Amino acid sequence: MVRNIVVERSNSVAMEKKQIEIVERKGVGHPDSIADGIAESVSQALCAEYIKRYDCVLHHNTDETQIVAGRSNPAFGGGEVIKPIYILLVGRATKEFNGDEFPADAVALKAARKYLKNTVESLNIDSDVIIDCKLGQGSSDLCNVFSRNENANILPLANDTSFGVGHAPFSELETLVYETERLLIDDLKNKKRIKAIGEDIKVMGVRNKDEIDLTVCSGFVGRYVDDIDSYVSISEEVKDYIEGLANDLTQRKTNVYLNAADDISAESVFLTVTGTSAEMGDDGSVGRGNRSNGLITPGRPMSMEATSGKNPINHIGKIYNLLSREIAKRTAEEIDGIDDIYINILSQIGKPIDKPLVASAQIIPESGANFNKIQKEAESVIDEELADIGSFMKRLINGEFKTF
Amino acid sequence: MVRNIVVERSNSVAMEKKQIEIVERKGVGHPDSIADGIAESVSQALCAEYIKRYDCVLHHNTDETQIVAGRSNPAFGGGEVIKPIYILLVGRATKEFNGDEFPADAVALKAARKYLKNTVESLNIDSDVIIDCKLGQGSSDLCNVFSRNENANILPLANDTSFGVGHAPFSELETLVYETERLLIDDLKNKKRIKAIGEDIKVMGVRNKDEIDLTVCSGFVGRYVDDIDSYVSISEEVKDYIEGLANDLTQRKTNVYLNAADDISAESVFLTVTGTSAEMGDDGSVGRGNRSNGLITPGRPMSMEATSGKNPINHIGKIYNLLSREIAKRTAEEIDGIDDIYINILSQIGKPIDKPLVASAQIIPESGANFNKIQKEAESVIDEELADIGSFMKRLINGEFKTF
Amino acid sequence: MVRNIVVERSNSVAMEKKQIEIVERKGVGHPDSIADGIAESVSQALCAEYIKRYDCVLHHNTDETQIVAGRSNPAFGGGEVIKPIYILLVGRATKEFNGDEFPADAVALKAARKYLKNTVESLNIDSDVIIDCKLGQGSSDLCNVFSRNENANILPLANDTSFGVGHAPFSELETLVYETERLLIDDLKNKKRIKAIGEDIKVMGVRNKDEIDLTVCSGFVGRYVDDIDSYVSISEEVKDYIEGLANDLTQRKTNVYLNAADDISAESVFLTVTGTSAEMGDDGSVGRGNRSNGLITPGRPMSMEATSGKNPINHIGKIYNLLSREIAKRTAEEIDGIDDIYINILSQIGKPIDKPLVASAQIIPESGANFNKIQKEAESVIDEELADIGSFMKRLINGEFKTF
Amino acid sequence: MVRNIVVERSNSVAMEKKQIEIVERKGVGHPDSIADGIAESVSQALCAEYIKRYDCVLHHNTDETQIVAGRSNPAFGGGEVIKPIYILLVGRATKEFNGDEFPADAVALKAARKYLKNTVESLNIDSDVIIDCKLGQGSSDLCNVFSRNENANILPLANDTSFGVGHAPFSELETLVYETERLLIDDLKNKKRIKAIGEDIKVMGVRNKDEIDLTVCSGFVGRYVDDIDSYVSISEEVKDYIEGLANDLTQRKTNVYLNAADDISAESVFLTVTGTSAEMGDDGSVGRGNRSNGLITPGRPMSMEATSGKNPINHIGKIYNLLSREIAKRTAEEIDGIDDIYINILSQIGKPIDKPLVASAQIIPESGANFNKIQKEAESVIDEELADIGSFMKRLINGEFKTF
Repeated sequence: MVRNIVVERSNSVAMEKKQIEIVERKGVGHPDSIADGIAESVSQALCAEYIKRYDCVLHHNTDETQIVAGRSNPAFGGGEVIKPIYILLVGRATKEFNGDEFPADAVALKAARKYLKNTVESLNIDSDVIIDCKLGQGSSDLCNVFSRNENANILPLANDTSFGVGHAPFSELETLVYETERLLIDDLKNKKRIKAIGEDIKVMGVRNKDEIDLTVCSGFVGRYVDDIDSYVSISEEVKDYIEGLANDLTQRKTNVYLNAADDISAESVFLTVTGTSAEMGDDGSVGRGNRSNGLITPGRPMSMEATSGKNPINHIGKIYNLLSREIAKRTAEEIDGIDDIYINILSQIGKPIDKPLVASAQIIPESGANFNKIQKEAESVIDEELADIGSFMKRLINGEFKTF
Repeated sequence: MVRNIVVERSNSVAMEKKQIEIVERKGVGHPDSIADGIAESVSQALCAEYIKRYDCVLHHNTDETQIVAGRSNPAFGGGEVIKPIYILLVGRATKEFNGDEFPADAVALKAARKYLKNTVESLNIDSDVIIDCKLGQGSSDLCNVFSRNENANILPLANDTSFGVGHAPFSELETLVYETERLLIDDLKNKKRIKAIGEDIKVMGVRNKDEIDLTVCSGFVGRYVDDIDSYVSISEEVKDYIEGLANDLTQRKTNVYLNAADDISAESVFLTVTGTSAEMGDDGSVGRGNRSNGLITPGRPMSMEATSGKNPINHIGKIYNLLSREIAKRTAEEIDGIDDIYINILSQIGKPIDKPLVASAQIIPESGANFNKIQKEAESVIDEELADIGSFMKRLINGEFKTF
Repeated sequence: MVRNIVVERSNSVAMEKKQIEIVERKGVGHPDSIADGIAESVSQALCAEYIKRYDCVLHHNTDETQIVAGRSNPAFGGGEVIKPIYILLVGRATKEFNGDEFPADAVALKAARKYLKNTVESLNIDSDVIIDCKLGQGSSDLCNVFSRNENANILPLANDTSFGVGHAPFSELETLVYETERLLIDDLKNKKRIKAIGEDIKVMGVRNKDEIDLTVCSGFVGRYVDDIDSYVSISEEVKDYIEGLANDLTQRKTNVYLNAADDISAESVFLTVTGTSAEMGDDGSVGRGNRSNGLITPGRPMSMEATSGKNPINHIGKIYNLLSREIAKRTAEEIDGIDDIYINILSQIGKPIDKPLVASAQIIPESGANFNKIQKEAESVIDEELADIGSFMKRLINGEFKTF
Repeated sequence: MVRNIVVERSNSVAMEKKQIEIVERKGVGHPDSIADGIAESVSQALCAEYIKRYDCVLHHNTDETQIVAGRSNPAFGGGEVIKPIYILLVGRATKEFNGDEFPADAVALKAARKYLKNTVESLNIDSDVIIDCKLGQGSSDLCNVFSRNENANILPLANDTSFGVGHAPFSELETLVYETERLLIDDLKNKKRIKAIGEDIKVMGVRNKDEIDLTVCSGFVGRYVDDIDSYVSISEEVKDYIEGLANDLTQRKTNVYLNAADDISAESVFLTVTGTSAEMGDDGSVGRGNRSNGLITPGRPMSMEATSGKNPINHIGKIYNLLSREIAKRTAEEIDGIDDIYINILSQIGKPIDKPLVASAQIIPESGANFNKIQKEAESVIDEELADIGSFMKRLINGEFKTF
């Protein structure tokens, strides 16, 4: 094999069998996630515009969006934003190419406004938010990789020592935490029309042996909640929904806590104007929330790398983190006998990115599984995926992977 | 008379008879005028919202908008903004009243965005401009004046030594300069559908005895100009229009220069993307452009006071400047025999604003006019207007007067 | 004569003989003056650095500084700034020359901080103020004028229709207003060591025939004022000083009002932490305060042009305003029989700046003076000064003229 | 026991025995670390000022500093910053207490400037950096915990579901990575006077079985490097120093790579003006770099929580992360027979912070160790430390713990 691939058996206990498991997800309307989402949408807009004009992606990194919370005055039936949320786009992008000036700031601003409008439905983009922009000048004048007609064999060289990590499969708790947030928005809010659900949903799952505590914070949007009775009734509907979901996803006893700090009798409840706590006191920034698999899993190996907003062409941290996740998923799905698999890819400066210093897998096999067989198959999958990293990157540039 | 009103005969030569006259107007899309317009629209929006909530206007001054120019790449048939224009709203407003939080920043932001959208038609508010906001906390907790049901006799006290100046009638040149900009927008652009005319029109008129040089700078909007031929043909149409206007307004020989720096053969012409030079290199701020009568008239007494954005309730400078202009206009219209009249009103700290320290008129009578009669009538008009300052202020709060 | 110079007799009454005269000066620590001073100091620093590196002054205009007031809590014996003053440097400067990157932003920032430190003594530059910077890229790549070794005959061409105005001599009231502020700082504060005097002194003079009201607002610096008794005693000292000054400068009866809004018994007095009202509620920006002669004189012709921060090389408005003042001063000093002289210089686009479209003087001669003689002498002075405009510009670049 | 403490034996392999280990440290001058350091210094300054005035710490979180890179032009013997670094302080702090206005912004600004001056020696604080500040208003009006005279038994209640993780002892690689950065600054730069060493040192250690690759990026400060020869000689000195250190700390073969991207013959080397790459292209923000133990250890459990800048009084994430580390260290030091210990503390909303939902330890015992004894001792240490959390918090408030 031309690649340094190491597949090891791990003596650890599979996550599902550990006594304590903690999993968290910050929903798309959480200030940190908004920062991630804007950063990534700006990068994707730049990619699209670079490709449109120059047939290739130019250097940029827009991974530092800062969200400064506003002030708001929520109320049943309405409420208002007092002081707008302030959002600063930070990063750098190539602004000149072959003598042509590229409108990086205008593209970024437009993309950020559009993303925000689409993501936080009740946010009035004209009075509730200020989007400012400080994009530096990127240094690259090269357009040597990934033009649309390019031979996929010419890969960028790793220009940093960095690594990616990924695991699969999701544990029950991980699935439950992830799906709770996703379905509250995609199904309950969007399809079943509980419009009061805000996009800033924080889900914290703690499993203690076979009992799960699922703590969900979900600010409701005042304009869709008439009064305290309405609030109580929506809360019950949401809680029922989550309990139904837990029932579908796990046999474990699951206790659902929704907005635990609410004091109904005092009418002190979690109401918002816009659906995001960025309206009142919660700042946010890129890379502070979910890892690229959508979760925070302190019991699993994690990378600190902020993938959102990073250049999909030559940012090793972004590429290897997302690729590790994909490889882990594929191996866990295709190979029998795996309880848990962890993929680590470590770059080798100056070498093509399909030739990492080492790509390793730590596998916790099912009891009784044939590890030798698993090992061989896993090596083969890893090798295949690295060999085909060109296709992976094209999908990445096209925005096919979620980053938070 | 309870008021100190002085009406004097001036020995000066009437403006129409001076050898040299210089008059300038910066159109509504000029960066300084945009700053003025935003500042005033923010103040008016605050007034309206204060009245709606509290039945009175609370303290505010929003007279310091700063516009930082962007970068653009104009082109026939299109062009684009490279770097957005940055606009900083500055000032202060009462943010708390009777325990209620008032959304001053959100109101200001919304008003500014709306004004800009309505004023500079080709400016894409989502990608071409960043509006930021730093409004301090106003100090007043009082709502003692101008509630909707208020007895108009209770007037605010002057809290500053300030003055206002105004003159009438407009000279021929003043009328010509003013109307040129107004009609290019209101008539030629909006009604006759020459959409290529941008809102940033600068008109400079110089009269040397009986010959007028009218220099008009008017950037065209690239998307409405197909090519250089189209540019030339639109330029001719605009120039013809202005010459026609001059022909209607004056008997003096008038030389019209439109975009004098254009070099047609080199295709180096005054093209913009948005219609305002704020897109490329021209910053702007409040109070740097037109005086409250819409003109810059270095040969006339002027006030340095920036009226746009000032509180219409107790800002003496704003009130007296606009009132002086109104009084001058009324006297010039109603009283026979006036060549030029200048009104000056000077406040008296701690006294009701209808009792200035002195309100004076300098009148240049027509040759042969009866000055004594003029004097008496002028005194009477001034007294009447000051006595009725309450009504004037209500119109002012309602936004009935232009401030630039 | 190769220049179009017009010297006319004016029928107006000399300012000294008018019934009402109003004159104002905003001291160096007034927010508008701070903005002016920073803008000009940044321009001078850029000039010096351009000359040092490239032996010529490159294009820039830094005439748009915006000051956003802070919040403070003044107290006898101390007090503190609660929220820093925010200052935004705006404008543009050439940032690249012959392939060399020029540190325009760093030069500007350093100059602004230094100016502020030197100008407002009690302002803590490390905790009381934020200086931000948004300087655009100037467009010029040319270094064709005013290199150190240059032949002074090669003059820049006027690239705009603009004008300058100036008058001389100062009236008694003008002198009194100007000197009051200057001497309170330079003599009473700096030499006589009344350190409590803050730099934000506003002087408003109103003359009604032969009686002058001189209203002085001068916030004292809390750390140098122990208590209300100390405040009263310093106030008396300052007032005595001003009365003495008035006594020296005019025979007219002069009423001095110092901090008229003070209420000593309630201990409600004009105290500051830093010496400038920018610490609490008063915003400021360039070109809103004193004209280039240091005064606001609504009864005199004035230019709206903000001279501070403008490029001294080819900004016609700056050059002609300052030159008009110099010419007026020289004629008034050298030629006998002049009561008032007004100089106007109007540019002619595309012509060398020593050949304006017209340079005119309006002279109010002393009673009995020989106007023909005055006229001839004045023409000669104007012609001489225009002929020598190269030397004038060198002095301008060296920062020899005050601009506010 | 009143506390829920779980001590488990882990089947995992101790880190020292794993095949692949990756450890990274971003030095104090790395943009992410600068953000961390400023955020924490601002919090500490607020704590000190709150205590001084009110005898207690009021609510604040200042954990969102954003650093926007500048532009620079490094050169042997000097170089210069072209465009200043922009730093935005973000967060919230109590600004009013018992009717007293608290100068949160001024305190924050001063602390940030002071920290930066002390941390990045060659950064000119007056021309190379802009520090801006957007601190919101904290919501707390309570001063109920941790006054100086307080009974330590009254502990704050956990107001969030959060957790902390910590491990001990450091592996050889962790020690080597950590000490390399620390000693380059504290010993080689500060004591041995190699002033050219910049503070922005990034150390990446990769161990593959018994061979370590230690990649060190360390930009040198141009003013202390005369030319390329000087650069080479300093590089050799630094590399020798690191190799000596590795020799002292590990028996494993260690390959040291210093500034691997340097191309000496082309004189393309890692030179800076200020010592931090924030001067040119590298943005930074809080919580993106080192975990609270000073390292990034993707093979260990980590928390995403940004501890720097968080309120030390009631921010569960900060308190439990730092406490977990302390407990891990103490157990590893005091108890015999531990290869690796991981501490996890999970909060229980509404309960005093000394009573977490669960505090767990996963211990990998040495081969042959008596796990029952270890277990009992570890439980006892954990219980003791939780019981004494009041003392821990006082040390935390005093700034005794590093957070990055």
